Amino acid sequence: MVRQGNIDNPPKTPLVPGFECSGIVEALGDNVKGFEIGDRVMAFVNYSAWAEVVCTPVEFVYKIPDDMSFSEAAAFPMNFVTAYMMLFEVANLREGMSVLVHSAGGGVGQAVAQLCSTIPNVTVFGTASSFKHEAIKDSVTHLFDRNADYVQEVKRISTDGVDIVLDCLCGENTGKGLSLLKPLGTYILYVSYTFLEYCFSNLLLFIAFQWWQVEKVNPIKLYEENKVIAGFSLLNLLFKQNRGGLIKGVMDKLLNLYNNKKIKPVVDSLWALEEVKEAMQRIHDRGNIGKLILDVEKAPTPLVSAKYILHTWCSHTA
Amino acid sequence: MVRQGNIDNPPKTPLVPGFECSGIVEALGDNVKGFEIGDRVMAFVNYSAWAEVVCTPVEFVYKIPDDMSFSEAAAFPMNFVTAYMMLFEVANLREGMSVLVHSAGGGVGQAVAQLCSTIPNVTVFGTASSFKHEAIKDSVTHLFDRNADYVQEVKRISTDGVDIVLDCLCGENTGKGLSLLKPLGTYILYVSYTFLEYCFSNLLLFIAFQWWQVEKVNPIKLYEENKVIAGFSLLNLLFKQNRGGLIKGVMDKLLNLYNNKKIKPVVDSLWALEEVKEAMQRIHDRGNIGKLILDVEKAPTPLVSAKYILHTWCSHTA
Repeated sequence: MVRQGNIDNPPKTPLVPGFECSGIVEALGDNVKGFEIGDRVMAFVNYSAWAEVVCTPVEFVYKIPDDMSFSEAAAFPMNFVTAYMMLFEVANLREGMSVLVHSAGGGVGQAVAQLCSTIPNVTVFGTASSFKHEAIKDSVTHLFDRNADYVQEVKRISTDGVDIVLDCLCGENTGKGLSLLKPLGTYILYVSYTFLEYCFSNLLLFIAFQWWQVEKVNPIKLYEENKVIAGFSLLNLLFKQNRGGLIKGVMDKLLNLYNNKKIKPVVDSLWALEEVKEAMQRIHDRGNIGKLILDVEKAPTPLVSAKYILHTWCSHTA
Repeated sequence: MVRQGNIDNPPKTPLVPGFECSGIVEALGDNVKGFEIGDRVMAFVNYSAWAEVVCTPVEFVYKIPDDMSFSEAAAFPMNFVTAYMMLFEVANLREGMSVLVHSAGGGVGQAVAQLCSTIPNVTVFGTASSFKHEAIKDSVTHLFDRNADYVQEVKRISTDGVDIVLDCLCGENTGKGLSLLKPLGTYILYVSYTFLEYCFSNLLLFIAFQWWQVEKVNPIKLYEENKVIAGFSLLNLLFKQNRGGLIKGVMDKLLNLYNNKKIKPVVDSLWALEEVKEAMQRIHDRGNIGKLILDVEKAPTPLVSAKYILHTWCSHTA
């Protein structure tokens, strides 16, 4: 991917992956308002979240509700903000609509399923490895094996397709997803951050590159079929396009849903920093349901008395 | 366009153009409910609206409010439903957003401007021929000449672009429109029906063909830039995709806005059926502000005592 020049500013190795974390505020930048040392917080970070101490601009930091654990908080921001913005900011999910989501057992998939359940009469079609079906069957309406012909499976149940397709697979799935849309339906291409992190951390650029292989779309065809195609990258929105203020409003809504017990992050398992390779292998083997958390307290010789991912140092400068 | 095979089921000549009309119900199909002979109605028609008597399925027929004239009603459905669905169903217009619309003096352009004014703090950028600016300057926030470099003009006022681009120009304007979008912004390609009717009625297929020349869009670019591209064709939605039920709900909302004096169709001028050539020339010369109406009462020898476009015969069969 990097070799092919398909992304801007590719990260240079060595690098510390990770885009979100939770922990305790250890230090504040000059003039930072709204936080104090000792606050329990979760945060977005532009790389380097897989660390014991993290520094990030204050606009990317959010207080953790009292009854949310650090591991839940480390699993919350990326998945739920991504799911919420795709469903409600890009696609305008409303009562009675239908949604197709791939990797329904993953972090974003589970967040999508939970957020869909907050709207009356929403049908969720999901794909996932068959061995996950028992664990997640209550969260989606119709589950298909990830290797099944999901286009045919969906059409068998809903002949005129679905209103929203959320696609993290890309490649030939873009054409399939567009073909499944009802008139006025929305196809959204996004990326699974866990997948990208896995590729980067293992230098599996050829795998990541496959994601980038996708046919271009003719706007006239969209016009003729009354369809919408969108791309969504939370990382670009946060770190390249300066939309932190917008995300703040979304986080407020999501924390309100959490406090009302409408949504709850799904934590698959906790891992020591030294176990990152095994944790990544679990993702690669599609063994996880929900989010894997790197827990710095599980490290045998912590450099500082860290709580979960990090102590966060908040600065108001970017 | 037809020669190049770029549209499905191209109309065969001779044909009667026209997709909307108003008039009095003259006859009802078997089992038609909700209408009576003599009702004042407006309707969508799949071609053949430029006639004294029209037949259309009952799902495309709507009663005219008491204080709406027949000429207003003939100018209402296509422009306002198109504008409403693009702004609120596809693009999710909300408070504080900004919209760019081309042909701001045309029927859809004026409907867009009026609907934007129903949402607080919406900025409307419009392009139109300079000689129309005086007449429409109060309806949009910023007006540019149609030959100006509107990308630069918009960026001079709003450096980060706009939230919604409504483009009926297509061709190279698709790329320009996409470049003007803010992150999470929506570009919508639609067609001006008046323009298409003009092309068909004058067999100017080479002009229509230019509209169809547009670069394909890379979904990865949408992903990287957080952008949305959509196409909207009300005719296909109505007559190919069977979404008459959805349009009924939109018409209810629009008639409510009309009754509350929030919106009002802009009628440019009335013409006899025999004057259709001159009327089309006025559109081609961009002389109109709002909709041109063919008024069958202006015909020198009407075959029936027709009121404006037609007497409508409603059938519940398609």
